[in-house]
Amino acid sequence: MSIERLIYLPLGGAGEIGMNCYVYGYGRPDQERLIVVDLGVTFPDMDGTPGVDLILPDVSWLAERADRIEAVFITHGHEDHIGAIAHHWEALGKPTIYARAFTANLGRHKMQDGGHDPKVIKTVGKFPESVKAGPFTVSFLPISHSIPESAGLLIETPAGKVIHSGDFKLDETPVVGEAFDRELWLEAAKGGVKALMCDSTNVFSPLPGRSEASLGPAIQELVANAKGAVVATTFASNVARLKTLAEAGERAGRSICLMGRAMRRMIEAAVETGVLTGFPKVISPEHAAEIPRENLMLIVTGSQGERRAASAQLAGGRYNGVELKEGDLFLFSSKTIPGNERGVIRIMNQLSEKGVDVVDDGGGKYHVSGHANRPDLEAMHELVKADVLVPMHGEHRHLREHARLGAEKGMYSVVAVNGTMLALQGKAPEVAGFVETGRTYLDGSMQVGALDGVIRERIRMALNGLVMVNLILDENDEPLGEPWCEIRGLAEVGRSRAPLVDVLEEDIDQWLRRAPGKVRADDDKLEEGIKRVVRTVTLEEIGKKVEVTTVISRLS
Amino acid sequence: MSIERLIYLPLGGAGEIGMNCYVYGYGRPDQERLIVVDLGVTFPDMDGTPGVDLILPDVSWLAERADRIEAVFITHGHEDHIGAIAHHWEALGKPTIYARAFTANLGRHKMQDGGHDPKVIKTVGKFPESVKAGPFTVSFLPISHSIPESAGLLIETPAGKVIHSGDFKLDETPVVGEAFDRELWLEAAKGGVKALMCDSTNVFSPLPGRSEASLGPAIQELVANAKGAVVATTFASNVARLKTLAEAGERAGRSICLMGRAMRRMIEAAVETGVLTGFPKVISPEHAAEIPRENLMLIVTGSQGERRAASAQLAGGRYNGVELKEGDLFLFSSKTIPGNERGVIRIMNQLSEKGVDVVDDGGGKYHVSGHANRPDLEAMHELVKADVLVPMHGEHRHLREHARLGAEKGMYSVVAVNGTMLALQGKAPEVAGFVETGRTYLDGSMQVGALDGVIRERIRMALNGLVMVNLILDENDEPLGEPWCEIRGLAEVGRSRAPLVDVLEEDIDQWLRRAPGKVRADDDKLEEGIKRVVRTVTLEEIGKKVEVTTVISRLS
Repeated sequence: MSIERLIYLPLGGAGEIGMNCYVYGYGRPDQERLIVVDLGVTFPDMDGTPGVDLILPDVSWLAERADRIEAVFITHGHEDHIGAIAHHWEALGKPTIYARAFTANLGRHKMQDGGHDPKVIKTVGKFPESVKAGPFTVSFLPISHSIPESAGLLIETPAGKVIHSGDFKLDETPVVGEAFDRELWLEAAKGGVKALMCDSTNVFSPLPGRSEASLGPAIQELVANAKGAVVATTFASNVARLKTLAEAGERAGRSICLMGRAMRRMIEAAVETGVLTGFPKVISPEHAAEIPRENLMLIVTGSQGERRAASAQLAGGRYNGVELKEGDLFLFSSKTIPGNERGVIRIMNQLSEKGVDVVDDGGGKYHVSGHANRPDLEAMHELVKADVLVPMHGEHRHLREHARLGAEKGMYSVVAVNGTMLALQGKAPEVAGFVETGRTYLDGSMQVGALDGVIRERIRMALNGLVMVNLILDENDEPLGEPWCEIRGLAEVGRSRAPLVDVLEEDIDQWLRRAPGKVRADDDKLEEGIKRVVRTVTLEEIGKKVEVTTVISRLS
Repeated sequence: MSIERLIYLPLGGAGEIGMNCYVYGYGRPDQERLIVVDLGVTFPDMDGTPGVDLILPDVSWLAERADRIEAVFITHGHEDHIGAIAHHWEALGKPTIYARAFTANLGRHKMQDGGHDPKVIKTVGKFPESVKAGPFTVSFLPISHSIPESAGLLIETPAGKVIHSGDFKLDETPVVGEAFDRELWLEAAKGGVKALMCDSTNVFSPLPGRSEASLGPAIQELVANAKGAVVATTFASNVARLKTLAEAGERAGRSICLMGRAMRRMIEAAVETGVLTGFPKVISPEHAAEIPRENLMLIVTGSQGERRAASAQLAGGRYNGVELKEGDLFLFSSKTIPGNERGVIRIMNQLSEKGVDVVDDGGGKYHVSGHANRPDLEAMHELVKADVLVPMHGEHRHLREHARLGAEKGMYSVVAVNGTMLALQGKAPEVAGFVETGRTYLDGSMQVGALDGVIRERIRMALNGLVMVNLILDENDEPLGEPWCEIRGLAEVGRSRAPLVDVLEEDIDQWLRRAPGKVRADDDKLEEGIKRVVRTVTLEEIGKKVEVTTVISRLS
């Protein structure tokens, strides 16, 4: 047996939904040549990452081995698979990035926005076309999902074939893009597959997945019966859904208008790459207000309640001159991603206040998932017939359930969360080690480590408020005047009914006067003492343990 | 017709779920004698209220009219109906508070914890017993809900009867407490009801509600088949569910242990007031670890993923000596309230990492709602046969849908959100005015107005980080040394690869040296100039518009 090995290492997406980043390597241990599959992001929230712009996978492990990276492959254009390319490309040693045409189109815009050469993204046709990347030969296997030209990857290695499913569903009538092509996948899997790395998102959904095309009739009926303006929102990248919605509007004799930059960008990319044809004629947002409302259908961004998106703007007031009112209809042709409920509900209530009827996907009539449900996962297992199943793209509970499903079918199944390196060259997969992984925050223009404490400081200020103490000492360590306090995010007056800053200044002053000379001569001791006084005062006065910053200036 | 009027004024709960507070008044305009129904709270979140402890209704309107308040009535013991009593009791002029025995028991503890006399809470028996409160005669109408001794109120007024439903469902087998007593409600409604103020929470749920008793078999089966330890979580106040869970454990030969202070308090109150009998024997948390896991069933708090509750502790590690592991079962016998998804999912994944099987209410097998679904709302309308329907306890979309339902049935139906005063003495309800309402934050020990800006400052620090600038000027307005900067929650090094504070200090210093004397003599102009420099530097260096605090000390 060769001492070369085949490794698999998830750096993002295994143990979470979002921020996908997977590494495959082949070669002698610690000299493997590497390819990267997907470089995605995940989105910040106020709970854990206030003020952060984007969350990227921590790719330090890869960056330290940039000279061993052969290429990057992007399975599809969702942000959690492609969103980090421009942010991490340099750190990875400026590798070539391969994708199918639609994905490449989106990727090139990202590279350009990031100030990089868009030409490093190469377009690849579908299997049997392939790319040679060191010891790997990689082909794109078209598969249906909720964005055009999604692909799984066939990764041929000296140790056998690996199939990386990407995000997928088995849809034979996907409205836009290729129907699921079983024959092509069978062809790719021919001769035996060593390992299947498989999407796990919907492993807890017991019913067979529904096709995108199944939504048409219900949406058409809803739009046909609407009296006032119709607004529909969905994920900007779901081009098939945009088409279904637009066609329902067109059938009902309505002018179609797309609102939201992301959505127009997607349609543009789909048209440019020939993925989308026959999309109904649209009017520009500037002209929407001129159309009688009973003849208008808006298709808008913001299905997740995002504050700046078109949905929120329309719910809050006028947008592009359009104002919704009594008798209008607003359709959420989407599901609410866990964590976004509050934002979505806020919009629904704002619309209700305007008298707009809101229809959501309560009964599953107006939305289908882009991921394979449990029976479809089983169908994929059956089709690929791999020796090993490695569940990916899911929270821990999804990976665990999916591994259990695989084990029941007789596959070697292993839960490998981010940072777990598997060796796959042998009969059974082995854990070859653990790698430090984590998250990097894009905060403004800087990348900040999740454990650097920067964001923790912000969270603490948000929870506890801040007292700033300013103290000037003369050359004899005597205070020059009273200490000066400022507060941020705290009640101005506490229990004693005196201004909080006055109480603070007086108590710090008294403490200072009693403090021995060696304390006053020592900035650390002074800071520590002042912090203690401040915390005691604020706890008594306003019942809070606050954050404290002390600035000591010494005149000399 | 009398010039006296009957008014209804929601101050919380109408246009939101939570924080219920309703006012009824009777008398000449602006001299009405008042009663208050419910004084609830709602819960803060990181998005809008970081660091806040509780959210209370703003009762300034009532406080200014405290001399006209006859009494407070509490329909049931959920926090969103009773949570604010101790916080607002003094502001309302220390009124008598009436409730049924179980609710009164909970209320007295709250008053005691708040340093007030618990005896101001009076226990009232059920209808036909009644309380005279100025022009009102009020009776408690037992009704089923997800907490013992919930009640609607029959409010007899000189202008006719009003029925205030409270939170309710129609449950004829509620496991604990009284079955829905149709005859009693018919008796109360006899002679005609002017207005029905009615719970709207589940107006969008189309199927008839299910009884609490319907859960027993499925829960019993689940527990009976479990191999390792069983942990179940539900709302602490759902005493009936606690009993169902405990009985399932007992049947399976397991020792039952309640973990979580709130849960033990609820059981205690239920036993003390005679509401609960025959609850299985429980062991104390200290002894749980001694029981073989296959014989153990824990019933724990924290169904909403609360970070400090028993569920989170067990998911994170050891709690009371118990550590969950492979083969144990964790049941969420609860629904996740919108906004709490992230916390619940975090716990589920932590449990999954331990190898614990998590069962949630995916299929509705292990939880039923405490609120009336649409058909049950219709049954209530039918039973009460009021002239007027005023939907309450719901977001705007719920109130609107419920009003629409009432109008279809021929009732006068009106959406009255918080602050909308209705006059009900005439045939049709009329809007009599609008009152300023809102939210008050309990932050530490202080009550802070939602619009005071205190919390907004905290949110801004969390989003933008903070730069503190410290400047000392001599008697000639000349800077004494360089300005001193500190940062909180910001990357330490920016684009120029120099420490951010160094760049800030240098640029402020340069600006100061160029600043004309009249700027240096003027604190406001100095602050403004410094802020501008700081924002320019941070935008260039780290791509963020930061918060800035400047402290200027002048030696003289």
